[in-house]
Amino acid sequence: MTQEFRLHPQLEADSRLIVRWPLCEVRLINDANYPWLVLIPRKPDLSDYDDLSPDDMKTAGEEIRQASAALRTVYQPDKLNVAALGNQVPQLHIHVIARFRTDTAWPNPIWGFTPARPYGDEEDAKLKALEEILRAQA
Amino acid sequence: MTQEFRLHPQLEADSRLIVRWPLCEVRLINDANYPWLVLIPRKPDLSDYDDLSPDDMKTAGEEIRQASAALRTVYQPDKLNVAALGNQVPQLHIHVIARFRTDTAWPNPIWGFTPARPYGDEEDAKLKALEEILRAQA
Repeated sequence: MTQEFRLHPQLEADSRLIVRWPLCEVRLINDANYPWLVLIPRKPDLSDYDDLSPDDMKTAGEEIRQASAALRTVYQPDKLNVAALGNQVPQLHIHVIARFRTDTAWPNPIWGFTPARPYGDEEDAKLKALEEILRAQA
Repeated sequence: MTQEFRLHPQLEADSRLIVRWPLCEVRLINDANYPWLVLIPRKPDLSDYDDLSPDDMKTAGEEIRQASAALRTVYQPDKLNVAALGNQVPQLHIHVIARFRTDTAWPNPIWGFTPARPYGDEEDAKLKALEEILRAQA
């Protein structure tokens, strides 16, 4: 058991911090193929979704809802994918991904499907709108 | 909007009913590659996780915890995967999957990785134990 939350270096490398909510750090994955957030509960020693206490799981549900709403507002996706997998990076992280029938992996799950594509300037306006909505809910 | 819950025929074909909990129908996927449950909230017109009301999302969290606990007790998995994807079958269904470092898809997500393998007699004892635990929580 450790005493403090520390972000796994792989999650740190693959994403950037947008805001810290009451339970989770909200990060954007560095992959312009999909609007893709990860929520990382800021507690030590969490690996699986059911490692969360009942109270924290309730908060996680609320934060998944907030992240989903922000993605819906900015991107109007066809579907949302929500998942806690963690086979490769064991620290609990919850994916909230906006999916489109036109996206590169549809209708497959996105993991391992297409190499990450860096964000370009053309995505700046939507990203800024997303970040503003997410930060307003801190 | 429809008035009644109806199970999507693809989910019905791919799984069998174990028990109905307060919110969800608990079903076992017909694939012996992984101990794999799906929880299907018994409400009409749900597609995404954030379509659940706040109260139902809280109950869903509790039922995910119960399903996870049952899988842990019977199978002692290395990891649990929890996911609401629904790109292929739009009715909201929450996967709760016991994963092992030795399973056929590890460390990848399981979807689309390996053709489903029917359960054989040698899995009966563990399946029966899983079903008993799940049914005791109805």
